[in-house]
Amino acid sequence: MKYVALVFALFAGLCSAQESGSFQPSTTNVWAAEYPRVDTAGRVEIRIKAPDATKVKVNFWSGPKIDMVKQADGFWTVTTPALVPGFHYYTVIVDGAEVSDPNTQAYFGGGKPASAVEVPEPGSTYYSIQNVPHGQVREVWYNSKVTGSWRHALVYLPPDYDKDTKTRYPVLYLQHGAGEDETGWVRQGHANVILDNLLAARNCKPMIVVMAYGYAARAGEAPVDLFAKGFGSPEMMKAMQDMAVVFEDDVTQALIPFIDSTYRTLSDRDHRAMAGLSMGGMQTFQITLNHLDLFSYIGGFSGAAGVLSKFDVKTAHNGVFADPAAFAKKVHLLWFGVGTKEPEWMRAGIVRLHTSLDEAKIQHVFYESPGTDHEWQTWRRDLNDFAPRLFK
Amino acid sequence: MKYVALVFALFAGLCSAQESGSFQPSTTNVWAAEYPRVDTAGRVEIRIKAPDATKVKVNFWSGPKIDMVKQADGFWTVTTPALVPGFHYYTVIVDGAEVSDPNTQAYFGGGKPASAVEVPEPGSTYYSIQNVPHGQVREVWYNSKVTGSWRHALVYLPPDYDKDTKTRYPVLYLQHGAGEDETGWVRQGHANVILDNLLAARNCKPMIVVMAYGYAARAGEAPVDLFAKGFGSPEMMKAMQDMAVVFEDDVTQALIPFIDSTYRTLSDRDHRAMAGLSMGGMQTFQITLNHLDLFSYIGGFSGAAGVLSKFDVKTAHNGVFADPAAFAKKVHLLWFGVGTKEPEWMRAGIVRLHTSLDEAKIQHVFYESPGTDHEWQTWRRDLNDFAPRLFK
Repeated sequence: MKYVALVFALFAGLCSAQESGSFQPSTTNVWAAEYPRVDTAGRVEIRIKAPDATKVKVNFWSGPKIDMVKQADGFWTVTTPALVPGFHYYTVIVDGAEVSDPNTQAYFGGGKPASAVEVPEPGSTYYSIQNVPHGQVREVWYNSKVTGSWRHALVYLPPDYDKDTKTRYPVLYLQHGAGEDETGWVRQGHANVILDNLLAARNCKPMIVVMAYGYAARAGEAPVDLFAKGFGSPEMMKAMQDMAVVFEDDVTQALIPFIDSTYRTLSDRDHRAMAGLSMGGMQTFQITLNHLDLFSYIGGFSGAAGVLSKFDVKTAHNGVFADPAAFAKKVHLLWFGVGTKEPEWMRAGIVRLHTSLDEAKIQHVFYESPGTDHEWQTWRRDLNDFAPRLFK
Repeated sequence: MKYVALVFALFAGLCSAQESGSFQPSTTNVWAAEYPRVDTAGRVEIRIKAPDATKVKVNFWSGPKIDMVKQADGFWTVTTPALVPGFHYYTVIVDGAEVSDPNTQAYFGGGKPASAVEVPEPGSTYYSIQNVPHGQVREVWYNSKVTGSWRHALVYLPPDYDKDTKTRYPVLYLQHGAGEDETGWVRQGHANVILDNLLAARNCKPMIVVMAYGYAARAGEAPVDLFAKGFGSPEMMKAMQDMAVVFEDDVTQALIPFIDSTYRTLSDRDHRAMAGLSMGGMQTFQITLNHLDLFSYIGGFSGAAGVLSKFDVKTAHNGVFADPAAFAKKVHLLWFGVGTKEPEWMRAGIVRLHTSLDEAKIQHVFYESPGTDHEWQTWRRDLNDFAPRLFK
């Protein structure tokens, strides 16, 4: 963390020296698109065509929401203030219609295909593809009796999986956040690249990573729109928690048996981990703490038990934290993290959980990502810190 | 084809008997989205929020382009006439801004993430997921010296690939069209599902299918925007052909060696096929006919040699068609297809190719997809007819 902070300080120093001529197309752009583009200070130029619109705004979900300016050619443009390094979702609001910018690839977030820019982090190589052995990500469809449907998941297999055909591997279940989907950890998070790079540096064990679709409705029931009453509303929190119960059944009754019968896994609890971001963290705590017969490593990235509601260490999750010695024997790793720039309620909830568990003498790791918000740069760092602690 | 035509006739009969209460959310929708929705007649209802817009149109690329109507709640709605079964791209034009509808998943087409609806084809099961053994689709990144970059491809492996660890498989290289990308054949086309179903019915050989990214610029050169001068413009055709030359080097010098060293392939020409749709068909003819040392099966789906320009059988592709006996000895299958409702210039070009080759006594298969346009339903049928003819 000190190293990261130092890089940030250097970076801030660089910014002021930058000139405006250094804008480059974002790595998230579609083929040959020149906009959006990003300079080394982290400023972003956006340009979209909307010749007959009267008002166009750009809406960075964890950043500036600013009016764009109409040019004579029918395009609207804007340059943002400097954004912190990392992946930033945004939409464009054209006369009240919130839509994505056709110049970037679509990244599923906010319950829809969204736009994004990538602001490079100077000196950072851990989430960019390197000339090291690469694992492969597989698309699978599994049949779930819980939901009565075929469900899509992505599965990362380590580089030697095809070669070492006798080796069995531990498994990390890794979940996306509310509004995202099973593609987020690869496309936004670069989880496969992070694992490849950790492995090449011998900083983690080879493992299988399963990224599932975190929405679920019971067979015959209609899907519930989490965002119908607004993002962050009490109705959304309730719907998320109801859905987590269905997802718990899907994971334990359909997904885990499918993975264990399809891949060469080590299928005991000592070799199964789960982690997730935001809503995925909430799901992780619920699923793992209800099934300590199945899991022994637990990670919450900007989301965990007790973030949304008051957390009583003695009674939470059926009293699983009441006996620290028994808990430490069962759970090999309890990990949670939060970005220092996340919304206060989120940060406060995670810090409160950390403090409560400290007081209750429950061993855990608490990680703070310097300078980052409730966004993917936080979660990339989380994974990079979390994965090396697994299956030791 | 007669069977298909019969189904169509029945379907047309059904349409007139339909009532309007039968609309269902499109299978392309995001979680819990009720719109767009489709009735059994193939009509589509679209609804998007644009409270401050003055004009909103829906734009089906191979279908209706119609004004939407503003409702009191700030949403705009429209119901289209009946569309033929299949996958239909569309965008929405909000005060001149052509954008995607946030209610559907994004499908890469037209050089950007686009929206789409799926109109079910009555009685058709070949492209929908069935309870049969499933192959897995793998994401790979290969390093290309031709482009000086890491390139993403998808690779379908047949269901028994992991089990029969001594078996080697033939390979089909399968390309997307202009404006699409390497994800198209799985997400829009359901190529993996089509192969699974053919295999389960013992209608094709187990094979590996490689779906690569068909855009390429030489290392150090800037990517060329195919659509800068408009879709279908002479500049686009020229840019596409220039790009095909770079892609040819990428396929033959980087992709094929990567696939053959990564998977258990049969790596001789007798076990390598290539096919592609539209631009991918043009690329296929160029690459395979320039490299008959590498390929022996060739498919053009609504795109092939001679579609764009006059085709002289004696001289085209360095005279490869000049000697029918020599050609038949080399090429085990030459296949091309077109939909009966495709734009006249496209259809005429493919029919002319068919006629020229017939006159020159070059053996080939010519397939017409009844009632379908330059769209994915044509290409799903193409693959379903083409794949069973491979590697016999």
